[in-house]
Amino acid sequence: MAIREIIQPGDHPYVFGRYHEPIARVSPGEIVAIYTEDAFEGRITGPDTLPSQVLGKYLNPQTGPIYIEGAEPGDTLVVELLDIEPTRDWAVSCLVPYFGGLTSTMMTRTLQDPLPELVWIYRRQPDGTWAYNDRFSVKPRPFMGTIGTAPDLEALSSLTPHMHGGNMDVPDVCAGNTVYLPVNVPGAYFSTGDCHVAQGEGEACGVALEVSGKVTVRFGLIKNRPIMWPRIVSPEDIMTIGSARPLEDAARIALAEMVEWLQSEFQYAKWDAYQLVSQTAKLTIANLVDTYYTVVAKISRTYTADTVSHTR
Amino acid sequence: MAIREIIQPGDHPYVFGRYHEPIARVSPGEIVAIYTEDAFEGRITGPDTLPSQVLGKYLNPQTGPIYIEGAEPGDTLVVELLDIEPTRDWAVSCLVPYFGGLTSTMMTRTLQDPLPELVWIYRRQPDGTWAYNDRFSVKPRPFMGTIGTAPDLEALSSLTPHMHGGNMDVPDVCAGNTVYLPVNVPGAYFSTGDCHVAQGEGEACGVALEVSGKVTVRFGLIKNRPIMWPRIVSPEDIMTIGSARPLEDAARIALAEMVEWLQSEFQYAKWDAYQLVSQTAKLTIANLVDTYYTVVAKISRTYTADTVSHTR
Amino acid sequence: MAIREIIQPGDHPYVFGRYHEPIARVSPGEIVAIYTEDAFEGRITGPDTLPSQVLGKYLNPQTGPIYIEGAEPGDTLVVELLDIEPTRDWAVSCLVPYFGGLTSTMMTRTLQDPLPELVWIYRRQPDGTWAYNDRFSVKPRPFMGTIGTAPDLEALSSLTPHMHGGNMDVPDVCAGNTVYLPVNVPGAYFSTGDCHVAQGEGEACGVALEVSGKVTVRFGLIKNRPIMWPRIVSPEDIMTIGSARPLEDAARIALAEMVEWLQSEFQYAKWDAYQLVSQTAKLTIANLVDTYYTVVAKISRTYTADTVSHTR
Amino acid sequence: MAIREIIQPGDHPYVFGRYHEPIARVSPGEIVAIYTEDAFEGRITGPDTLPSQVLGKYLNPQTGPIYIEGAEPGDTLVVELLDIEPTRDWAVSCLVPYFGGLTSTMMTRTLQDPLPELVWIYRRQPDGTWAYNDRFSVKPRPFMGTIGTAPDLEALSSLTPHMHGGNMDVPDVCAGNTVYLPVNVPGAYFSTGDCHVAQGEGEACGVALEVSGKVTVRFGLIKNRPIMWPRIVSPEDIMTIGSARPLEDAARIALAEMVEWLQSEFQYAKWDAYQLVSQTAKLTIANLVDTYYTVVAKISRTYTADTVSHTR
Repeated sequence: MAIREIIQPGDHPYVFGRYHEPIARVSPGEIVAIYTEDAFEGRITGPDTLPSQVLGKYLNPQTGPIYIEGAEPGDTLVVELLDIEPTRDWAVSCLVPYFGGLTSTMMTRTLQDPLPELVWIYRRQPDGTWAYNDRFSVKPRPFMGTIGTAPDLEALSSLTPHMHGGNMDVPDVCAGNTVYLPVNVPGAYFSTGDCHVAQGEGEACGVALEVSGKVTVRFGLIKNRPIMWPRIVSPEDIMTIGSARPLEDAARIALAEMVEWLQSEFQYAKWDAYQLVSQTAKLTIANLVDTYYTVVAKISRTYTADTVSHTR
Repeated sequence: MAIREIIQPGDHPYVFGRYHEPIARVSPGEIVAIYTEDAFEGRITGPDTLPSQVLGKYLNPQTGPIYIEGAEPGDTLVVELLDIEPTRDWAVSCLVPYFGGLTSTMMTRTLQDPLPELVWIYRRQPDGTWAYNDRFSVKPRPFMGTIGTAPDLEALSSLTPHMHGGNMDVPDVCAGNTVYLPVNVPGAYFSTGDCHVAQGEGEACGVALEVSGKVTVRFGLIKNRPIMWPRIVSPEDIMTIGSARPLEDAARIALAEMVEWLQSEFQYAKWDAYQLVSQTAKLTIANLVDTYYTVVAKISRTYTADTVSHTR
Repeated sequence: MAIREIIQPGDHPYVFGRYHEPIARVSPGEIVAIYTEDAFEGRITGPDTLPSQVLGKYLNPQTGPIYIEGAEPGDTLVVELLDIEPTRDWAVSCLVPYFGGLTSTMMTRTLQDPLPELVWIYRRQPDGTWAYNDRFSVKPRPFMGTIGTAPDLEALSSLTPHMHGGNMDVPDVCAGNTVYLPVNVPGAYFSTGDCHVAQGEGEACGVALEVSGKVTVRFGLIKNRPIMWPRIVSPEDIMTIGSARPLEDAARIALAEMVEWLQSEFQYAKWDAYQLVSQTAKLTIANLVDTYYTVVAKISRTYTADTVSHTR
Repeated sequence: MAIREIIQPGDHPYVFGRYHEPIARVSPGEIVAIYTEDAFEGRITGPDTLPSQVLGKYLNPQTGPIYIEGAEPGDTLVVELLDIEPTRDWAVSCLVPYFGGLTSTMMTRTLQDPLPELVWIYRRQPDGTWAYNDRFSVKPRPFMGTIGTAPDLEALSSLTPHMHGGNMDVPDVCAGNTVYLPVNVPGAYFSTGDCHVAQGEGEACGVALEVSGKVTVRFGLIKNRPIMWPRIVSPEDIMTIGSARPLEDAARIALAEMVEWLQSEFQYAKWDAYQLVSQTAKLTIANLVDTYYTVVAKISRTYTADTVSHTR
């Protein structure tokens, strides 16, 4: 049986919100393959392309919104990531003026000149790694940079990660893992995009190995079970995600959400949960370049029940 | 041949600085075993101890300063961590009023009441893990919470991590790894303390499994080779460490130091180094509870020369 | 001749955005009086009202959007504040759980209990000041807490201050001053609300003397003259406004915008502008409680031309 | 009767701490005139001086420490500022590489080039203002950029503002006002320096109108009355000062200290104090360029008793 494919029929939205018409309706349990454009909508094609000249006004085109049948505010949307594949054999990274982690930006303003505009075209090598020169090559670990639902009232830029998910740039949004997202509007209005062949934690320069992609997912719903922030379950870990500025606020959110999760679902008393998190958590920076910064907290599933009860 | 043991002869210093007299002189190449007190100088002994009543004015007693023969400003001090062992079979964690990551603090002030004062005594279990109840147990991964040299002019609290090292609370300061520290004063004035049986990244509640310890090290010197911030080399990774507030500034320091290191020692061009860091770095939060927060950036040694040239 | 009055015909929007239908169309030069609800839509009426029980899901109802005839993206909208008057003789302040500057919040998360829920009803006194008890009274200095245009693509919560204006909580948005706002969509889609009888800088507890109000304005347009962030001109000062987190980023934006303004309109060379700002600016915190924090930079008009050329 | 003059007899200290020998002993009630060097120890003398070439390793030479007879830990040191005068008719401002508010810095690291090194020599004009060219002139409002006591154990750089005072760069440290500082060590170990002819709030470029100066003070002691952070009383206002990063933490400290002060000395109940601060405080940024940023909160003395009881 063929998997249904979802391709954006018209313009890609550049916001997460309830104000665009859904492009597809999917039922829980159904498997679909979603095609996504790269972060630049394919406008950067070679090392001589100047980002400041070819880029449109917006970044991170989304595929969506996708209406999930039966989703109601107060539910949790379950997104099993079955497969993520780049749909071409080259990827782009670049330096965009006043964007990234080791430059001043439009929000962290200085009077300095920007870094030079540079473009790198990474190509898939015979050994499966990706490289733009002989100096080093990168092992592919494809994931979706943006994934989320519609906020309740707001329409948020697809450059923004927040409670609804969005541009979190978390490498754990990869095949084999399951992402949990809050449902804020009827139908959830799911969107995704910004496929990365690979990315370091922090996404230092602000631009990963940007590629067009195909992500195969199965949606599910946990009815009447709200979550405030996105969560991920991998075979090894349960994860909470916080996005905020300054970065310590993102970390506090991820940690506090983990304490809350351990209490509400895994029968930890509050202070036992705080101890478990204090003594065993992993705490990694997913991005320090987006409009909010993102931190991921992880606890080994050896500390939770044999299986995470609600995943299926 | 017996290893020389260094035990604090009098009061422990609670600062990193040049203003205390050295307690020992050690030559590069010599192996010594240093004994350290726990972060509370042993004052918390049971679950009924109230931290606010028994704690002294200062935390994190250091063993030192140790004078390294031949160390001069502009050198790098090499500290090979050969072994780290707790010297007792129980460890303390606790909640100290207005201290920690998920509470307001003296620096992040609110008008709220503090969290309750609670003490947990973790005991070594027959299977080697450490636990205070049946709910969960923690695998030991002992490391030194504080390790550093004297700043040039300042005397900095042993609660502070900064360019000189200090209270970084980085779990990678463990046996098998090598720590590099700047030498700012003749003799370097090395100190260490705050041994942890284990700690989660971020050290969420501010207090790890605090224990007295014995750390066996071999010192070395790289002459006329200054570094600005501490670095670590493990069998797998090279690591840079930044400590600052807000947390994004700590992350920027770690990332920028890594770009600099890749250029100066591993023959990467500047923008290649920025790409390598952007696409492959690990970026973890060591602590978000100390006077400065600490972030560690890691790059796989598969991207550097076969061996890190300067380690021996 | 009577001034046209604008009253919200239906539900108040709780976002700034292009997705609501305009409630009125106004031409440049026309004077209109706009009626606004208080931040709680009038739900808190006495000291025994518990905010957490009576408040709706959203705060800061807006009156708008108002379509400004002829406004096009790239123009600047000029809003002369001719008069601001509370429309009742009592105002509300209160403590909302996990909201404010001296409490942990949903974004600066801790595990502490919230501050108590308290409500204060300030009443206009015979001497014109406002007070809730005999301990102190507050001199009225009414201003609009929220004022702004629609962002381009986003719909942003009316709790958020950003480039479009919004919930800046700047006491200088008062009668006698002129506010400049960017036009991002045809018609500008102006909204305002959140009238304050008075407020301290920083708005420490997060809730000023909240009141329903009537604001009389004259709109103007500066064609083909974009600004990035809101600006204010008073009889004494020119002002730039930045809203961001952390607070230093808001300050940097305000300062950098002032340097830019001095260059582009007042013939200062870049470094002269930086010196003038460094040696003479006022720099005040308008709020440290909203989703972004807001800072105002001021330069005395003695340093600019006799009149600010573009105000009319 | 001649006022005793205090001139640094040897090298100026570049730290606040207990580790330098006092250069003078002064009794409470005595008036002394203290001479201070400029922030660059006079090394920048003309527009062609390159800061990076002539500056020493440290900035902000202090005059001190001065031993205050009878001062004991737990007391408050009272410093009445009777007069502050520049001792020359020219002052220096400049751009120091990677230092200031609108540039990346050693703590907010980027890979960008620094701003150009520029020096401005402001000269006193016949009309009393100070100027370096015809474009604008600055009205003198001389104050001491650094003023403080010794921390308990630490020796802190004279670039650092913290609980002991230090490099706060608060323009209200001017003649006519009284500064209150915590006493942490016997004798208090008072130092001051970094005289500014004038400075904007925020000290945007990091360098005010730096000048050598003479400050005339009368010291006093409030026995057995500790304060945590510096305070100022002017004829109009009482002020609290917080220094921290990020900037919101500095603001929170200033606001929380004001709430505490209103409770402990002016008979406000806690929540009344929070309301008074929320609705009437001024909140200004003194610097966003030093190792910690500094914020000042002000409450009008119309809200306190007729006189601030403890000033004499």
